[in-house]
Formats: sequence, structure tokens, C-alpha cells
Amino acid sequence: MAAGVACGVRGSGGRDLGLLFSELPCETAAVFTRNALKGAPLVVTRGAVESGGVRAVVANSGIANAATGQGGIEDAYAMQMIAAETLDIGAGEVAVSSTGVIGVRLPMDRISAGIRAAAGELVEGGSGFAESIMTTDTRVKEAVARVEIGGRTVTVGGTAKGSGMIHPNMGTMLAFLATDAAVEKDCLHETLGRVTNRTFNRITVDGDTSPSDMALLMANGAAGNEPLTLESEDYPVFAGAVEGVARELAKKIARDGEGASRLVEVVVEGAASEEGAAALAKSVVGSNLVKAAVFGEDANWGRVVTAMGYSGVDFDPENVDLWFGPIKVFSGGEPVPHEEAEANATLAGDEVKITARLGEGAASAVAWGCDLSYEYVRINGSYRT
Amino acid sequence: MAAGVACGVRGSGGRDLGLLFSELPCETAAVFTRNALKGAPLVVTRGAVESGGVRAVVANSGIANAATGQGGIEDAYAMQMIAAETLDIGAGEVAVSSTGVIGVRLPMDRISAGIRAAAGELVEGGSGFAESIMTTDTRVKEAVARVEIGGRTVTVGGTAKGSGMIHPNMGTMLAFLATDAAVEKDCLHETLGRVTNRTFNRITVDGDTSPSDMALLMANGAAGNEPLTLESEDYPVFAGAVEGVARELAKKIARDGEGASRLVEVVVEGAASEEGAAALAKSVVGSNLVKAAVFGEDANWGRVVTAMGYSGVDFDPENVDLWFGPIKVFSGGEPVPHEEAEANATLAGDEVKITARLGEGAASAVAWGCDLSYEYVRINGSYRT
Repeated sequence: MAAGVACGVRGSGGRDLGLLFSELPCETAAVFTRNALKGAPLVVTRGAVESGGVRAVVANSGIANAATGQGGIEDAYAMQMIAAETLDIGAGEVAVSSTGVIGVRLPMDRISAGIRAAAGELVEGGSGFAESIMTTDTRVKEAVARVEIGGRTVTVGGTAKGSGMIHPNMGTMLAFLATDAAVEKDCLHETLGRVTNRTFNRITVDGDTSPSDMALLMANGAAGNEPLTLESEDYPVFAGAVEGVARELAKKIARDGEGASRLVEVVVEGAASEEGAAALAKSVVGSNLVKAAVFGEDANWGRVVTAMGYSGVDFDPENVDLWFGPIKVFSGGEPVPHEEAEANATLAGDEVKITARLGEGAASAVAWGCDLSYEYVRINGSYRT
Repeated sequence: MAAGVACGVRGSGGRDLGLLFSELPCETAAVFTRNALKGAPLVVTRGAVESGGVRAVVANSGIANAATGQGGIEDAYAMQMIAAETLDIGAGEVAVSSTGVIGVRLPMDRISAGIRAAAGELVEGGSGFAESIMTTDTRVKEAVARVEIGGRTVTVGGTAKGSGMIHPNMGTMLAFLATDAAVEKDCLHETLGRVTNRTFNRITVDGDTSPSDMALLMANGAAGNEPLTLESEDYPVFAGAVEGVARELAKKIARDGEGASRLVEVVVEGAASEEGAAALAKSVVGSNLVKAAVFGEDANWGRVVTAMGYSGVDFDPENVDLWFGPIKVFSGGEPVPHEEAEANATLAGDEVKITARLGEGAASAVAWGCDLSYEYVRINGSYRT
């Protein structure tokens, strides 16, 4: 069940406090940012997830409650406690999340009123929660998958937010995934870790890793399947559903990057390792010069090869084949003759695809990002004012 | 002696081919980009510097001669040979440098005519060479220092270019330093390596490490001093002069970053190591979000602490004191009450200073960068067209 209400943390007057709640107990796995600066909610939530049984999430947007000292930690615990009392569950069953401006304390009276209001509006489905966690996001980000597991229909749903300060590392921007599958604890953790690595950790908007990044996967077992382990015959079906939902959310975050006008997908094939392929793809998708060229619809492939070159991955540029959409532009260390207008045209749509094939092995990886526009500068030159 | 002429490589009609020449033989040290993609001129110049005695530089702007395959390598050798014949010196005494668009072959007839024209215009001093290596640069970058060594006056001069694709790693953008000091070979190499690390490797404009980065230090001994070694009593004076010239050039590159309206200097003090301090300072100065906030004159210190947090350096955010100019904004893990308008005002000038003090040790480092403006996006959305 989910709800989102307006409690007045964001100046805009929109929804800014959300509640997720499972009436059944859950196994819950989480991953958090690797930033040395960690928002207060992450400290509190990590404790809850480690002690087990998290089945509710209370989240606000507008203020991140990060770099707020001991007072901020106390606010996060208070937020957890108020939600627990309101839902009549244990404090340790509540995860807390805040996103927005760093270095500002939460207005706890509004948060408290918001939690009580949200608890009264809990419904199955609806986009209230997804709306309530948006900051500079322009679109709600939700995804769902349904699969058969042991003769039972299992649903995996998720919602995420993220538009700026997006360069997840281990954790991610906020992503809340829930499933009615029964899943054993270790299996759930392992699944979320691997899926995060392949989806949320493969997107970048601006190279800035947030102190508030967090991804949560809750499983309440309502589907009635035999609890899944890594060895279950049906496990790949479940893992694939989770990865599919996470990938869709990750792409939605990249597409909705601050000021972005298009989604950029970079595919690296023929690499020696998936790790190397991912590092190459992320280096390209994170290059300001590549991003500005995509914005300007200029198929400046030299910048792509350059960004691969400084990725830190060992490879031979002479062995690289490079495409913009279907147009081959570079091979064997030198340009492939092509119509520049045709290559530029591959950058004109909503989705841009750049593919690099190395002659080093059989591994591949995909990374997602967006273009760099005037609008990104406008948004971030005046975010607080 | 130096010269710069217009030979028609750049469409603009400005100076685009330069020649540097020492009538006396030189010891020469060089550092090059760590990008896996290396421009053809770097391959040729590395060979010349390793064989010893480089005393001339031929450089063009407009085309980088990178990612141009074997044909590009042959062009770079031809450029070296034509300069050597024109100056009547050995081909191995000529360093070659090209900067501009990647993936395009040089028009060798124009280059050849340009070299001959430049050789006829060689003069002591003058900014013709410095102008000829500019691309999106808006200002000529030169610096000079004079010091006494063993009773002789020694001059260290330098010129550099760089505006976009600036995130030097080991090498730098183009920087050509020359001195009339006599310096032993090992001492010269050691000096350039250390100085580069502390100056050119401490600037960033956009996080993109170019395949054409190169720094050269030529010493022809005309001052008549006893050749310097690392053990010479006067060596620190010489090293200080070289570092001062390099620092001034590095700051000029950062200040002239593509679209930049101000120079950003980030000082990290009280760190456990200089390497750690430098990584923290570079992480802050390289953050798109910090850069956009500086552009918008928004003293958004949360973004500074966040960028320190994802630098990869181990430190405790609770021990950080942070200042915008003279205004302390963060201490002990939480905000220091201050007038926001005063903090914002520290971002309004030509030069912005952000200082972070860690309680970890006695090491410090400085890094330089610039703000991120609409103009950066405009320049890089339409560079080739």
C-alpha cells in the first residue's frame, strides 16, 4: 500500500511526503551510497535493514537531511518512530529516506503531520508515493513485471527518483522495489546487489554521487510460492524480473536527467570483462564533451574514443569499431568514411545509441545517461533560490 | 626564438602554425597524456625527446591529428622533417604538436607552407607562437620568471593553451617551457614531472583528458651557470621558478576554461597526504554541480562536502571545516550559521576560493577550475560545425 501527500517541506506545494507499507512482514535488502558523507536517513535505515523485517518506508523530498550533524540523526529517528506509531508496527520495521537540499534541518512538525495524513490515505497502487519523492524530476518513475514462479503469479514493482547528482556507486538514487514473492534473505541481498550493479550503477547524469543514494527491495511472500533461494529452479525468472524492473527505472532516471532532452545508451561489446566494458561505457556516457555533442546533434566520435581512452581500462584503440546508431564511424584506428549528416541524424531522436566493439573478448555492458543542455546549467545555477 | 603564422588549417583565418627554436642545443624533458588514445604527434615527439637534444617545436591548431591511423603518424613525421630541413637541424631535434578536431587528417601542403613562412618570421619574444596554438582559448597564456643562479640571471618562460577537454593526467594540455639555465638531463626530467603533478595536473575544466596533452621543458644553458643537478645549492631556486611559471600557466588555462566566467581555487589543508589533499581538491573543482552553483553565485556548500565524499579519499566529514572565501559555512558535521547573501557574494568576483580543513594531518594541496556556464554547452554543442 502506498500514499503521497503535500506537507509543506518543498516550497512548491506539491506532494513531498510518501509512505509505503506492507501489511505482511517482509524480508528486505538494501544498498547505500559509497559517498563518505552519508545522509542521516541512511544511517537509520541501515540499522533497520540489518536488524531485519523492514516493511514500511517513509520518505520526503525537498530536504535531504544530510550534513546536519547529530540533530539530523535525531530527526531521522523521530521520523522513523512517528511512522511506526502511526502504522502500529515496530520502529525497526520502518526505513527512512530524505532527498533534496543538503545541510538544512527537517521541519519536524510538518513531517509529523504529513506522516499521519499519508497513513490515512494508503491505497493499493496509485502514483502518490512516486510523486512525493520527486525533486527536480519531471516525470514519475515506476515499473512492474509479472512472472510465474512455482505455479504462482509473482509481481515485482518499483518506483525511483533521480534527476541531478546522479552517478550512483553501489547504492543509487532512491529506488524502492517490492515483490509479493517469498524470497530467502541471503538470496534477496545477493539479487539486489547484482541487479543494482547492472542497472542503477550504470547510469550517470552529472558524475556527482549523492550522499542520499539508496535502493531497497522488499519481499512479503504474499504470492505463496516456495521461498526462493539462489539454487531454486525458478530463481533466474525472479532475478530477471527484478533486473528488468530496475533497468526500466534506471533508464527512466537517465532520461529524466536534469535538463536532458534525450536518453543516451552506450553499448560496449567484445571486452575482456564485464567490469571493463562497464567502465568504458560509463566513461563515454559521463563525458561532458560527449553529452554536449549529443545535445548539439554533432556526431563527434573523436570525443567517444577519447572518453574510452581515459577510462582507465586497458585496451587497444586500433581494435575498436564504433557506431552512432547504425552508422560506422571509426575502425582500425582511423575514421570510416561516412556521411556526417547521416551520423548527426542518429542523435536527433529521443534515444541515442552509441556502440563500441573491442576485439578483446566476449564480455559486454550497457550504460545510460543523457545529454548536457543549457537547462542543466540553469537548474543547478539556481537550485536553492 | 618564436613565430606564429596563419596557414589555413583553422577556418577562422587566425594564426594556426607556430615554431619555437633555440639556436643552442638543449636538454629537453617532456610528459605526455595518459589517455590510451594518443595523438600521432605525441608518438613522434616522444621518440625525439627520448633520443635527446630537442631544440625546436612545430605546432598547429585546428586539427589534432589524433585517431588518424598510420597516415596520421606519417603526417607527423613529415611535419617534423619539413621543420628540421627548414631550420637546418636534425629531424630528431624537432618536437611536433597538434591540437584541435580529432579524427581529421592534416592538410600537409598548408602545414608545409606554414612552417616555411614561420621560419622566416622567428623573433625573440612576441606572442605569435602563443596565439598560433589557441583553439577555443580566448586569451594568450604566457608566464615568465627570472632568478639568480650561481651569480647568473636565469630566465624561465612558458606558454600554454587549453580551454576544453581539460583534465590533465600526468601530461597536460599543451605547455611549452624554456629556460636559458644549464640543467642536467635527469634533473630536468625530475623537475618537470614534479612540477606538472603540482600544477597542470591540478586543473580541470570538464573532466575530459585529451589524447593530445603534452608539456615540454627545454633548457639551452645560455645563462652560463654551472649545470644544475638535484643536489645543487641553487636547485630549489630554479625548481621554484619553474613551478611558479607552470602554476601561472595552469591557472590561466583554468580561468580560460570553455565558457568560464570565473577561476575557482580549492584549497584542502590538514590532510594526511598531499596526494589525498589533491584528490579531494580536484573532486570539488571537477564537480558539475559545484561548478554550476559557482556560475549561479549560489554558495551551495552541501555540494562541496558531497564532492569530497565521493573523491575516494578516506576522511571523516565530522572533522571538516569549510569556508567560501572568508565565510565559514560547515564544521563538525553540521552547518555553521551564516548570512547566505554574504557567502553568495564570495562567488561574485573573478576569482572564487573554497577552503576545506581536515583534522587528519599537515598536508595540503590546491586545485584550480572554473564554473560551468550556458556558454560551455553552446561551445561544445557546436564545436565542429
